[in-house]
Amino acid sequence: MANAKQLTGAGLRGQVAGKTALSTVGKTGSGLTYRGYDVKDLAANCSFEEVAHLILKGELPNSSELNAYKSKLKSLRALPQALKDVLERIPASAHPMDVMRTGCSMLGNLETEQSFEQQQDASDRLLAIFPGLVNYWYNYSHHGKRIEVETDADSVAEQFLWTLHGKKPNALHVEVMQASLILYAEHEFNASTFTARVCASTLSDMHSCVTGAIGSLRGPLHGGANEAAMELIEKMANPDDAEQKLLGMLERKEKIMGFGHAVYAESDPRNAVIKAWSEKLAKANGDSRLYDVSVRCEAVMWREKKLFCNADFFHASAYNYMGIPTKLFTPIFVCSRLTGWAAHVMEQRADNRIIRPSADYVGVEPRSVKPLAERG
Amino acid sequence: MANAKQLTGAGLRGQVAGKTALSTVGKTGSGLTYRGYDVKDLAANCSFEEVAHLILKGELPNSSELNAYKSKLKSLRALPQALKDVLERIPASAHPMDVMRTGCSMLGNLETEQSFEQQQDASDRLLAIFPGLVNYWYNYSHHGKRIEVETDADSVAEQFLWTLHGKKPNALHVEVMQASLILYAEHEFNASTFTARVCASTLSDMHSCVTGAIGSLRGPLHGGANEAAMELIEKMANPDDAEQKLLGMLERKEKIMGFGHAVYAESDPRNAVIKAWSEKLAKANGDSRLYDVSVRCEAVMWREKKLFCNADFFHASAYNYMGIPTKLFTPIFVCSRLTGWAAHVMEQRADNRIIRPSADYVGVEPRSVKPLAERG
Repeated sequence: MANAKQLTGAGLRGQVAGKTALSTVGKTGSGLTYRGYDVKDLAANCSFEEVAHLILKGELPNSSELNAYKSKLKSLRALPQALKDVLERIPASAHPMDVMRTGCSMLGNLETEQSFEQQQDASDRLLAIFPGLVNYWYNYSHHGKRIEVETDADSVAEQFLWTLHGKKPNALHVEVMQASLILYAEHEFNASTFTARVCASTLSDMHSCVTGAIGSLRGPLHGGANEAAMELIEKMANPDDAEQKLLGMLERKEKIMGFGHAVYAESDPRNAVIKAWSEKLAKANGDSRLYDVSVRCEAVMWREKKLFCNADFFHASAYNYMGIPTKLFTPIFVCSRLTGWAAHVMEQRADNRIIRPSADYVGVEPRSVKPLAERG
Repeated sequence: MANAKQLTGAGLRGQVAGKTALSTVGKTGSGLTYRGYDVKDLAANCSFEEVAHLILKGELPNSSELNAYKSKLKSLRALPQALKDVLERIPASAHPMDVMRTGCSMLGNLETEQSFEQQQDASDRLLAIFPGLVNYWYNYSHHGKRIEVETDADSVAEQFLWTLHGKKPNALHVEVMQASLILYAEHEFNASTFTARVCASTLSDMHSCVTGAIGSLRGPLHGGANEAAMELIEKMANPDDAEQKLLGMLERKEKIMGFGHAVYAESDPRNAVIKAWSEKLAKANGDSRLYDVSVRCEAVMWREKKLFCNADFFHASAYNYMGIPTKLFTPIFVCSRLTGWAAHVMEQRADNRIIRPSADYVGVEPRSVKPLAERG
């Protein structure tokens, strides 16, 4: 397009691509709010179901709304047999994010969203089914076990740990998981959410939007930083070893995941919350190596590079203390961020114009097709 | 973000979101070029494999390159058993685009793109497998038949018709399908392609990008216009009936699909090509009703609204003359546009910055969490 407006930066950075009432990110240099509430306030005082209700339905629930919502989610955990069949055909070597992408897409065939009036129900179903879905595949492919996903778990947080480990999890772990799911629930126009909105702008269905978002979250520049942080810290024997290894990496200019942020300038407000939980888990476990190592990494990165920990860094030790395999870290992100994705889809639908930007053409000039026999 | 640049229009319209060397759309008000070649020149003189080679590898192939490419694609048609198992579990009632989305995603579990060095092979595999994939599901779910997808078909075009109908198609039909696949192959930063690029910008894998793109193409504002056009014209008994019905729809301000375009101002260059093929098919079939009706629709829409036919309108009659069920029209679009999506993914990867725009916050002001018991 000859008259298209030029961008100053690549990747639409700093460019407004739409409106949202769902969250603010970095408005004061460090804050994160969901529908006006500070994420730290929510993480300290709410369960994930309350926050999911806030994000998806617009307000925090009162007591009876919360009970009704939890009962609804509990009733929606069953995996259809055809979906189990699909999960059983995905090998143990698969990327767990590909499993979630495929599971979500398959569910869209079995329980297609037929009209936008079903958007709340479709989202609630995904919220209820995702923990069991990924853990069904994990247990089947890795241990040959067909697990029961209709557990007595009281929450999405408990359901994740229960279906992963096959038993009622301890109360501290459920508390940590509640906070973790709250911290990851929503984050404005990040790449996966923007993927969901572009898809929604064609008026496609909820499963297509969420499937696409999972595919984007899979990318190493987006989700997966907590997995990379885990790979880093598990190699470190103690804080001094951590410092030495980090300094070596910095000298060799190697990429260190879990620090800094594209939007936050001063700090990531989610870090203090998950760091405190990681410390509690370390004490409860009677083995503080991963936590101590992480604390030293934080100090070194700040001293050397003025880089702060983002939400992902202390998630690595926290998840590990709860016995969660590293490859399942990003799928937990999916179980949580689904709320933000679905709410953004609904918001896009409510005031839609198809998202169709222009491109700057940098290719060859007009030319004519030569007959096949004359091509060099 | 306080300092984010405001958009003049919604949906990033007219906003440059990146560079491309792949195509120009509407540069002179009506043109469409792929890597410098006019789409009409390509449709008149090339097979789809030549155009796929142009789009994916950068240049039209010479004779030996073309033979090698066709042989390669022919060797990549087999459906893995696990993928067949998945397709057999998708009910006949499913949306065929959901089937393709799920099939593509499932293949990503079985043949994961492990590094970007595999991007050409991953794309070629999708190009080779898609026609058989959708038609395997279609024949199994609708007719209970497990078809053979490793046919002797010489081209993607022939493979689609062969696996759909279970026999070698006639030469005219293959020619039309060649042209159709060429016309739909690439179209700059449309919503599905932009979805693929947003996903690619997180450095995610090829299957995630294509899966996301299929989900966006599924939306009624994007793909599916040829299906809607078919539903329109099949109700029309003859040209006079068509005129009467259209005038009624215009008076009632009903939406009429297949006319006008977001980017083209004067005409859609693809229309003349597919219109000519539709006329030939009408003659060969000895039943010109759908073609005659379509011609009258074109005249009425231009006379009444100065709206021209886009690529989709005459595709409806052309596909119908070839015995293609209406619900498979958009999956053909996928078999073709895959080339554009994959090439855009490669282009994004080659000069990447994560696509992460900002949002205009229009939500509630900061507030504090009330204890559950105190909420109204």
